[in-house]
Amino acid sequence: MANKTAPDASRRSERSRRAIFDAALSLVGEVGYDKLTIEGIASRAGVGKQTIYRWWPSKAAVLLDAFTQDVEGYEAGLPDTGDLAADLKFVLRATADEFNDEKWQAPYRALAAAGANDAELSARFVERLLEPGIAVYVNRMRAAQEAGEIGPEVDVRVAAEMVLSPFSQRWLMRTGELTYAYVDTLVDMVLAGLRPRASA
Amino acid sequence: MANKTAPDASRRSERSRRAIFDAALSLVGEVGYDKLTIEGIASRAGVGKQTIYRWWPSKAAVLLDAFTQDVEGYEAGLPDTGDLAADLKFVLRATADEFNDEKWQAPYRALAAAGANDAELSARFVERLLEPGIAVYVNRMRAAQEAGEIGPEVDVRVAAEMVLSPFSQRWLMRTGELTYAYVDTLVDMVLAGLRPRASA
Repeated sequence: MANKTAPDASRRSERSRRAIFDAALSLVGEVGYDKLTIEGIASRAGVGKQTIYRWWPSKAAVLLDAFTQDVEGYEAGLPDTGDLAADLKFVLRATADEFNDEKWQAPYRALAAAGANDAELSARFVERLLEPGIAVYVNRMRAAQEAGEIGPEVDVRVAAEMVLSPFSQRWLMRTGELTYAYVDTLVDMVLAGLRPRASA
Repeated sequence: MANKTAPDASRRSERSRRAIFDAALSLVGEVGYDKLTIEGIASRAGVGKQTIYRWWPSKAAVLLDAFTQDVEGYEAGLPDTGDLAADLKFVLRATADEFNDEKWQAPYRALAAAGANDAELSARFVERLLEPGIAVYVNRMRAAQEAGEIGPEVDVRVAAEMVLSPFSQRWLMRTGELTYAYVDTLVDMVLAGLRPRASA
């Protein structure tokens, strides 16, 4: 519904939205997805329960919006300096810094865990966050393919996952540190297999 | 403690252990890790709660033993026919069949999800299941490296994760099907980057 609001009301709405997102992200990190409630989010955000229900049908919807709000750069895509290895290392090093930040870890981990068990939530998590995240890598690799940096026969979706999945699984399962050295090695090893063949 | 048991008692024990493992694996798939209880497992298995507590300190311990019980082939390692690509495809196709089996999916997914949130459980899950699973791939790749199929400079741990993580993340996040065609493409793309360089 088109809702005509005065500037003040709209500012208040934006403040409430922000407070609700902050509350949802910090609470899910503290109590986990299963114990997260709309009541809890409302109380932490200092708004009424009805304010939340007016905008979102469920805690999953709040959380997904809260995450998407903080995701930057998906529209812009990855940088393209003409050097695929350098661009991938640049972005993955920044992502490693983010993943290694405790504040950011807890809510993302809670959502990933909840998604593993809940097929419905997982589908929305994947559609809203994971797939757009993979898509920017696929697009950058496709550009590199057109520029001749990657062989024409390469499946760039599988290639993008070869970079992203080892990176995120190390973090999710805590099987290794996300260091810059690791990022660089991973990118170099993946790209080594994607170069155009000399000739047949 | 060394417990001298008559053959009959030992057979009964083994039957109880099996029943407890089966109950734990089916229940965790049905109710999730958070709602799994020792009481629930005991009731499903038809044994007393004390029987479980005599052998295991927690539900996590029962579950990890139940999984490890069903894991085969870790001691034997991967097949080594001298053709790394063929061996990896053979094993990963069989693993895809297993991952695509509903009966096997639910408990594994529940444990992976619980581990994402619970650092202590995750550490044991990784130590008992994930790391031994990665290790057999690392060992097979190291053998291929010694045989000259893989370049001497390759970090085989990172290489093993380049195969295993995209495979398991597709399944965990439901971002793609685990088909034989996918397995073959993934193995070929990873190995393409690992071959010894012609010369410097």
